[in-house]
Amino acid sequence: MTRLFNDPATFTEDMLAGFLDANAQYVAGVPGGVVRATETPSGKVAVVVGGGSGHYPAFCGVVGPGFADGAVVGNIFTSPSTQEAASVARAAHGDAGVLLITGNYAGDVMNFGLAVTQLQSEGIDARYLAVTDDIASASVDDIAKRRGIAGDFTVFRCASAAAEEGRDIADVESVARKSNDRTRTLGVAFDGCTMPGADRPLFTVDAGTMDLGLGIHGEPGVSSHIMPTAAELAELLVTGVLAEKPAGTGNRIAVILNGLGRTKYEELFVVWKTVAALLTEAGYTVVQPEVGELVTSLDMAGCSLTVMWLDDELERLWTSPADTPAYRKGRITTTEAKTRAVVTTPATTPQIGQADADGKTAAQLVAQGISAIAAQMVAAEAELGRIDAVAGDGDHGRGMVKGTRAADTAAASALAQGGGTETVLTAAGDAWAAKAGGTSGVLWGAALAAAGRRLGNLGTPGDREVTAALRAGHDALTSLGGAQPGDKTMLDALAPFVSALSSAVESGTDWRTAWLTATEVAEKAAADTAELRPRVGRARPLAERSIGTPDAGAISLAMCIHTVADLIEEHTK
Amino acid sequence: MTRLFNDPATFTEDMLAGFLDANAQYVAGVPGGVVRATETPSGKVAVVVGGGSGHYPAFCGVVGPGFADGAVVGNIFTSPSTQEAASVARAAHGDAGVLLITGNYAGDVMNFGLAVTQLQSEGIDARYLAVTDDIASASVDDIAKRRGIAGDFTVFRCASAAAEEGRDIADVESVARKSNDRTRTLGVAFDGCTMPGADRPLFTVDAGTMDLGLGIHGEPGVSSHIMPTAAELAELLVTGVLAEKPAGTGNRIAVILNGLGRTKYEELFVVWKTVAALLTEAGYTVVQPEVGELVTSLDMAGCSLTVMWLDDELERLWTSPADTPAYRKGRITTTEAKTRAVVTTPATTPQIGQADADGKTAAQLVAQGISAIAAQMVAAEAELGRIDAVAGDGDHGRGMVKGTRAADTAAASALAQGGGTETVLTAAGDAWAAKAGGTSGVLWGAALAAAGRRLGNLGTPGDREVTAALRAGHDALTSLGGAQPGDKTMLDALAPFVSALSSAVESGTDWRTAWLTATEVAEKAAADTAELRPRVGRARPLAERSIGTPDAGAISLAMCIHTVADLIEEHTK
Repeated sequence: MTRLFNDPATFTEDMLAGFLDANAQYVAGVPGGVVRATETPSGKVAVVVGGGSGHYPAFCGVVGPGFADGAVVGNIFTSPSTQEAASVARAAHGDAGVLLITGNYAGDVMNFGLAVTQLQSEGIDARYLAVTDDIASASVDDIAKRRGIAGDFTVFRCASAAAEEGRDIADVESVARKSNDRTRTLGVAFDGCTMPGADRPLFTVDAGTMDLGLGIHGEPGVSSHIMPTAAELAELLVTGVLAEKPAGTGNRIAVILNGLGRTKYEELFVVWKTVAALLTEAGYTVVQPEVGELVTSLDMAGCSLTVMWLDDELERLWTSPADTPAYRKGRITTTEAKTRAVVTTPATTPQIGQADADGKTAAQLVAQGISAIAAQMVAAEAELGRIDAVAGDGDHGRGMVKGTRAADTAAASALAQGGGTETVLTAAGDAWAAKAGGTSGVLWGAALAAAGRRLGNLGTPGDREVTAALRAGHDALTSLGGAQPGDKTMLDALAPFVSALSSAVESGTDWRTAWLTATEVAEKAAADTAELRPRVGRARPLAERSIGTPDAGAISLAMCIHTVADLIEEHTK
Repeated sequence: MTRLFNDPATFTEDMLAGFLDANAQYVAGVPGGVVRATETPSGKVAVVVGGGSGHYPAFCGVVGPGFADGAVVGNIFTSPSTQEAASVARAAHGDAGVLLITGNYAGDVMNFGLAVTQLQSEGIDARYLAVTDDIASASVDDIAKRRGIAGDFTVFRCASAAAEEGRDIADVESVARKSNDRTRTLGVAFDGCTMPGADRPLFTVDAGTMDLGLGIHGEPGVSSHIMPTAAELAELLVTGVLAEKPAGTGNRIAVILNGLGRTKYEELFVVWKTVAALLTEAGYTVVQPEVGELVTSLDMAGCSLTVMWLDDELERLWTSPADTPAYRKGRITTTEAKTRAVVTTPATTPQIGQADADGKTAAQLVAQGISAIAAQMVAAEAELGRIDAVAGDGDHGRGMVKGTRAADTAAASALAQGGGTETVLTAAGDAWAAKAGGTSGVLWGAALAAAGRRLGNLGTPGDREVTAALRAGHDALTSLGGAQPGDKTMLDALAPFVSALSSAVESGTDWRTAWLTATEVAEKAAADTAELRPRVGRARPLAERSIGTPDAGAISLAMCIHTVADLIEEHTK
């Protein structure tokens, strides 16, 4: 278990502070993560990697010459926010574009994707790639749905080495895609990991068994096996990975036998003995293998085998020198590197749109609603945490508190500066996404901003505007998040609520009355998610265990709706 | 726990094979361990480090330019044998002497000490140093009794860097001693580690508590504490280590925050944040700290803080470049390194002393006795394992089987070549020590060889010769092992046996009859060790638990004595 922490809520910040101090010759902190201690030279593409933390040396441990230019550091197992990804990319960017790479996870794809849009709007040639090496997470026909696990390392490494060679952004992106196309990983887990402050593991694997294909945050595996010998495990992994040999590849391969945290180097070497023999037997030449901890998962017990099928270019990049806090190889040729000036957070001045008197009054009510929701979330934090802990990592209550508090502050500030409904909702949404991070943060942020844009800053929104705004929020959330009804997510409460409210308004009810009726629908729908089984995201035992418990995101959404209903009732008294 | 292995009995061999394959560009295997892949150049002192395995990256992970020339690799937590230490040192040696360094543990001190004597007799300028950095293991007045833990790393590193600079053997040894004198470590453990194949940890720490000063194999701690926060732990460690500031040292320090295996880098960084702040507050300048796993203990949970007080020389050495499988720093200047030819085991041709007919007959009886003992140990392996597992690592039965089997083969071979008693006993003792490794192996080996030397190769040993030989064996064992009566070791059975037999012979009984009577004394004494509490070696909970269980070494010794008694009875029938 994770034993050493101060306040679990500040674990990532504390970790990052210690990491930066111990590695000051390599890295400098910037808002949202770390960049190299030296400036990105003119003409060099920046490569920024990232994702949630808890995977050291991934991701901040591989920032330095020959490897990444920056790493975005989210909370443990939680995607960084869009703002954090954009901030690190901005700091790492020189003048030749920036490639952002993460593993293929919903929260990362959303947040880094939005960051790229933001960076492009600022004139930076930003690109994004999600690594999809985990062969257990989807079939080869559905390869784009695969997760990124230890193959993150080969893709990050080759793209970074290409950038170090001075290749342009199109080349670097193309190298990253080729490396991803040629990388396959198969992993196993023997036991779960424990979040800082938690008293039990995030997920468990039955004693004496091993889960094949279990993800690095406990996502579902493919099959359960009696614990094998080291040699049997080597055979299982080698057979599984080699069966996926990409078309048109040869017999030279880069190989990683990766430890997930609690599996020791000695054990990995025992497994490697057989892995190496089997690969040779299969006619392969292994080029500079890595046996050790490269992409971990807190104190999870397990390991994975990654193979990248090389061509001349990838082999040159794979074997090139690197010098980072956690990964060093060969001899870096010093370029005249300029030490970076201290990076500070740029002061953000929100765009305050033109609002009229009615627009300001409406905005005031919106801000009041957000404030009430923030207060409600403080009261509900523990309960939401308990619900979330059944099948998740128990941090949903904390995420909602962080997000709604930030939204409340931002809304009040936008209002004080004369903002209308659009300004207030956009500011609140941005702040929510930035501070909560993860998947629910970015979804709430996008939904509020979309609703705000639909409402505008002028006039008092009527019934039709309110329904349209709710629909816009709903659509932003589904298009960004990609969940389907029945996937046991917040959408399972939001969709019935929007439908019920829309129907009532269409049949002539005013939106306030319709909200009250629809609230009951949302609450029932949220409670009914207890009957659903999540389609994605958690290890089988936990997915099973979650049946009978509602989705924490749906419950918190219904709570927010209810809080607004209470306010409506108060105002209409 | 340790989950990945094939046959637990070959874990170290399997691990080493995988390690060598994955790191072929750095290291080559030699009998007993590993050396650099390149030959030691003329004029360069070789530094050979070592000890039991299970501590990766210590010790084989730090062989390479700027660091060690060779590492002796014992079984898990078991000292390598004298032969293994000498073999690696011989292979690593160029022409300028060799410094052997281990942590200060009885088995290592004996085996490496004997190896140095052997190497010197071959004309190699060999030196030995035992690292004593663990401030919890003995008081500062008794500093030579302290164990070596993570401070192994600073001492190995500085001595190796001095050798890389081309300093002579006296200089390298003096740097190692200075580094050791200026290095202090304090460690804590939160949970025990599990040996490959074992179903429970080697030792345990009560849940929710932490043991201060617990050794890296579970040796006794100083005190038990409620599990602190990361910041509280940092303060405890910093205060403890700084209180031991050696006289005449300044304010520049090298610092290691070392993880013991299951404690993750993220947790270490959280602790480091406070450690760094406290050291700065105390007026220290931290030079290139290391935060990570450097000296581990299988999957033990815990960490330690090491401080080495620098002077200009140590600072230059500490910050110099290194390039090894597990530790790389800066840029090594390539020298024209010559790739090493494959090292094979030199065929050993035992010295067969001149034996007469009576001497050969006596030797035959001795060989028969050793053979009977080897058979008896196979039968007793499981029982000895069970006894040893109460307070030890449960491998005593296996060690006795390995040792006596090797002794049996060697004795038979020496006999076949016409050896007398001395030749047979010496060959048997050497083989036992070489194959069993650890503490009991080297002690048995020394005792048999000493007894053999006393008996010589000529004539039939009489009563006085037999008692004198037993006394010589006893004395060799006590002088090498240093245990006192009552320490709960094999000495507690051996000493009463030798006394009883000597007394009986002195009062006119023949040695065979005396052996039979003394056997009962030895067996009772071995059983009586159940009442003793071990003075050294195990964590408090296990030391307590061992009360009521006899010492496995005393029991196996009594079994050996009994087997000889059975043979005597058979022969005198």
